[in-house]
Amino acid sequence: MRPGVIHGVGLGPGAVDLLSVRADRLVRNAKHIAFFRKAGRAGRARKIVEGMLRADVTEFAMEYPVTTEIPLDDPAYNATLSAFYEECTAHLRALAATGEDVVVLSEGDPFFYGSFMHLYERLKDSNRVEVVPAITGMSAAWTATGLPITWGDDILTVLAGTLPMEDLIRGMSGADAIVVMKIGRNIDKVVEALKTSGRYDAAWLVEFASMEEQRVTPLREATARITPYFSIILVHGQGRRP
Amino acid sequence: MRPGVIHGVGLGPGAVDLLSVRADRLVRNAKHIAFFRKAGRAGRARKIVEGMLRADVTEFAMEYPVTTEIPLDDPAYNATLSAFYEECTAHLRALAATGEDVVVLSEGDPFFYGSFMHLYERLKDSNRVEVVPAITGMSAAWTATGLPITWGDDILTVLAGTLPMEDLIRGMSGADAIVVMKIGRNIDKVVEALKTSGRYDAAWLVEFASMEEQRVTPLREATARITPYFSIILVHGQGRRP
Repeated sequence: MRPGVIHGVGLGPGAVDLLSVRADRLVRNAKHIAFFRKAGRAGRARKIVEGMLRADVTEFAMEYPVTTEIPLDDPAYNATLSAFYEECTAHLRALAATGEDVVVLSEGDPFFYGSFMHLYERLKDSNRVEVVPAITGMSAAWTATGLPITWGDDILTVLAGTLPMEDLIRGMSGADAIVVMKIGRNIDKVVEALKTSGRYDAAWLVEFASMEEQRVTPLREATARITPYFSIILVHGQGRRP
Repeated sequence: MRPGVIHGVGLGPGAVDLLSVRADRLVRNAKHIAFFRKAGRAGRARKIVEGMLRADVTEFAMEYPVTTEIPLDDPAYNATLSAFYEECTAHLRALAATGEDVVVLSEGDPFFYGSFMHLYERLKDSNRVEVVPAITGMSAAWTATGLPITWGDDILTVLAGTLPMEDLIRGMSGADAIVVMKIGRNIDKVVEALKTSGRYDAAWLVEFASMEEQRVTPLREATARITPYFSIILVHGQGRRP
């Protein structure tokens, strides 16, 4: 029997018609889907495909054993997550061994800070894995602002809000256009870094890009609020243009 | 009469099934399309949608008056291009005034180094313009390498090969993951900058990402060749992962 294919399918930023035609087809035809979620939540990837699935689809919810309970630098964090990914991988491998294809749903683009990468690294040498790229959350975010992100020779730097302050400042100072992801509880640090590098007044906060709840706010008008983990901060490049 | 809508539609990296569902629908239903091309060429954006268009579609090919004949820093370059964009804009505006919607085809993501931005800037205050984000060429390129581009807190920097050497080196040195676009005749400078910043041995050249002619080569095995303008050089991040 031919082993099944494991598809890592990027769903894009959230709007259902921003899936690629290829992703749309794979999701609608899938007999088996798998997706990550926090325990007790529906899961963001799963929510995007609501209404698209076959009636007889089999769903495999991969529930994170930890999210923020253990600090990132605690060895227990890595050990716990690693065991979790091994477990998920074993399940997918067993499914593929019975000849079944599986579609692993991934928010955004799978190879750009995606959770799917952790499964991919463990599966790629033993299984056929096909990855479908997708529209990134940041593309949806800069489109939402109504302003192009990069002109001419603009340098774009993408930073994670989880970085130390000095790395944020250095990254921002060397860039024309800036994207900050993974903001959440790092918002104060990110704001401070933007101020230090002189980019605060030009920064935008985009929440729920491409979704119904989409909201675009100049950052200086938004910092009183708690920002959700999946919001993005942007500073647009101002490079040459005729 | 209601004026028409001008759609800036990102087509993604080149594979026809990597258009978004929204873009696919807009292209297939369009009565009017517009696209940039070099004089005497079919146009890359136009080629992607071959076979998707209505039989009665009206096509407006916007042919660049210059590409590399005039140096970028010559004022004549800006003046010539600016006049060209004004001309294109006037045509689109006239079409919209008759109540017709127009789909402007854009390779990649329209707001990420896209030509559509030059029309958008001139149209946005007078017309209804809707932009559809898309999968970037760089997403297709890193997917093609079979290696995720960014892990954990990796800093990603996107650079244009047209930048001065010292900017390339500075940008590469501060980044974990690197994308270099607009390579073409700048290949020797880009290679030199990668060597100076110690990233040459880890660099990949991706040509025609997502297309039939797709080719992925370690850069050190590829530099004897002339690389086409739309190839991409990548260095993957190696950040934390459980």
